[in-house]
Amino acid sequence: MKSFDETAQAQARARQDSLTKPPGSLGRLEELAIFMAGWQGTDRPRIDRAQAVVFAGNHGICAQGVNPFPVEVTAQMVANFNAGGAAINQLARMAGADLSVVALELDRPTADFTQGPAMSTAEVLAAMAAGADTVDPQADVLILGEMGIGNSSVAAALAAARFGGSAADWVGPGTGAVGDTLAAKIRAVDTGLALHRPAHTAEQLLRAFGGREQAAICGAIRQAGELGLPVILDGFICTAAAAALTADDSAALDHCLIGHESAEPGHRRLIAALGKQPVLTLDMRLGEGSGAAVALMVLRAALECHNGMATFAEAGIGG
Amino acid sequence: MKSFDETAQAQARARQDSLTKPPGSLGRLEELAIFMAGWQGTDRPRIDRAQAVVFAGNHGICAQGVNPFPVEVTAQMVANFNAGGAAINQLARMAGADLSVVALELDRPTADFTQGPAMSTAEVLAAMAAGADTVDPQADVLILGEMGIGNSSVAAALAAARFGGSAADWVGPGTGAVGDTLAAKIRAVDTGLALHRPAHTAEQLLRAFGGREQAAICGAIRQAGELGLPVILDGFICTAAAAALTADDSAALDHCLIGHESAEPGHRRLIAALGKQPVLTLDMRLGEGSGAAVALMVLRAALECHNGMATFAEAGIGG
Repeated sequence: MKSFDETAQAQARARQDSLTKPPGSLGRLEELAIFMAGWQGTDRPRIDRAQAVVFAGNHGICAQGVNPFPVEVTAQMVANFNAGGAAINQLARMAGADLSVVALELDRPTADFTQGPAMSTAEVLAAMAAGADTVDPQADVLILGEMGIGNSSVAAALAAARFGGSAADWVGPGTGAVGDTLAAKIRAVDTGLALHRPAHTAEQLLRAFGGREQAAICGAIRQAGELGLPVILDGFICTAAAAALTADDSAALDHCLIGHESAEPGHRRLIAALGKQPVLTLDMRLGEGSGAAVALMVLRAALECHNGMATFAEAGIGG
Repeated sequence: MKSFDETAQAQARARQDSLTKPPGSLGRLEELAIFMAGWQGTDRPRIDRAQAVVFAGNHGICAQGVNPFPVEVTAQMVANFNAGGAAINQLARMAGADLSVVALELDRPTADFTQGPAMSTAEVLAAMAAGADTVDPQADVLILGEMGIGNSSVAAALAAARFGGSAADWVGPGTGAVGDTLAAKIRAVDTGLALHRPAHTAEQLLRAFGGREQAAICGAIRQAGELGLPVILDGFICTAAAAALTADDSAALDHCLIGHESAEPGHRRLIAALGKQPVLTLDMRLGEGSGAAVALMVLRAALECHNGMATFAEAGIGG
């Protein structure tokens, strides 16, 4: 991992305190500018190039009736991304991020994790490599998102396996599971947990529960970390994937922001378990990187203030 | 007041439910698009023209030692706004809002409200008229902000007089009052409340406590309401000014969003008293319309999704 530059961080903090506002009064915007300064190694961090990647995968767990949408919707939504019709298309354009969509073997879903491991080790590694490969080394910030019918069941399982608790602590409605579907989802996750616990490493967690998009997210985060490239994570599914990495290294997500707190109930608990604070809370629960893209607008706003404001000295204010 | 178009609202809600996402999954972004649809009277609301206005005024209450900054800073910050060096300049530019700054007789502060009324009725009406005059009838949304050393004391007094409680319930650090300054601030507000209670109308409240920028905000909100023009309010001071209007008409702020919840502790209580929900919570406490400007970015994001996304039928998804 490229290290965080504490000198640049301190210089950025000093600059914030010199700008024409009461110290600290830009709140989270100040923290975000200082965070970027530390990772970019300069007191004047910039975002010239923002990259957004949405990883898509399919999941054998859908055989357990955990989702109100059919698995075909994953491929249909990928087509929608490519046609520019999804929320992330609008939000990435508005936030000034270059969007790419990486569909990971949609016609070859991972195995049903209630029956055995979701993936082989080779499959985990291939998906992680695919994720790492997508990272643009010229980017100044990376937004990660996902799409995959059934993947909120995978996320709940990963979160429970990583941080403890039973399915009921982590399962939520996802795309809209209620009644029997929600009950089936809880049952499936508990069955998976009983089958696969303990899982101690990121690779073991991903092998047990899947899925390809989760492994790709992990690969991208690791690659970004090596480059010292700040990452904005999206909601519950993206964060649960990322959380697997902390099994190997407690500092694995130091370069990552949580873009927003999802309305999916497990996300708040997950963010707290990671010791993080979300940038936004907008009751979003769509995935696709949508919340992270809105957070990118806030991050850009933070840097506009940081770089564009006059200091008290420049403005001739105070004494 | 121009009335809210419930048909357009219902059509916008139906459109949201037809877009390629689980219904409701864009959370607050959906609500914001539907709100705009109702006020614009169309199921496809747009923001072609966004106006941001910062009103500035000075306050006799500063004689009570309520603020760590000297009153001269108000005029210095107005110069900074005009030179483009303040936070609101960066944020308004990024949010695509045309910014104007209206300095209201800075060399003639309102009177000290611990000694008598802050303003005459004529002064209240003149400032309200000045505020109403600034509203661009061609705008699609209006952002309001303020600047005025001492005006968080005015805001606390207005909030207490409007919603009850004592100074300690509403006074916070503002630009950074601590220790003796904070104690003086609480004492000044309690003295003012004892002197001026009861104040039953917006005009009485503004006459008692001031100030010119608060009255101008009220005038602008009323004018915008008459035009059916949605408004984004900023933090504690802006919201406390707006709250005065609800003394005359409980629906006076129906066309207003609270852009963000400020870190100033009274703001949360004030938002709750108004039955509103802030768009953002970013621990900002700067004023100038800065939080409202960030909220405008989120509002624009909401409309981009609303207007730009494909429907399930258009994308050929589901059945």
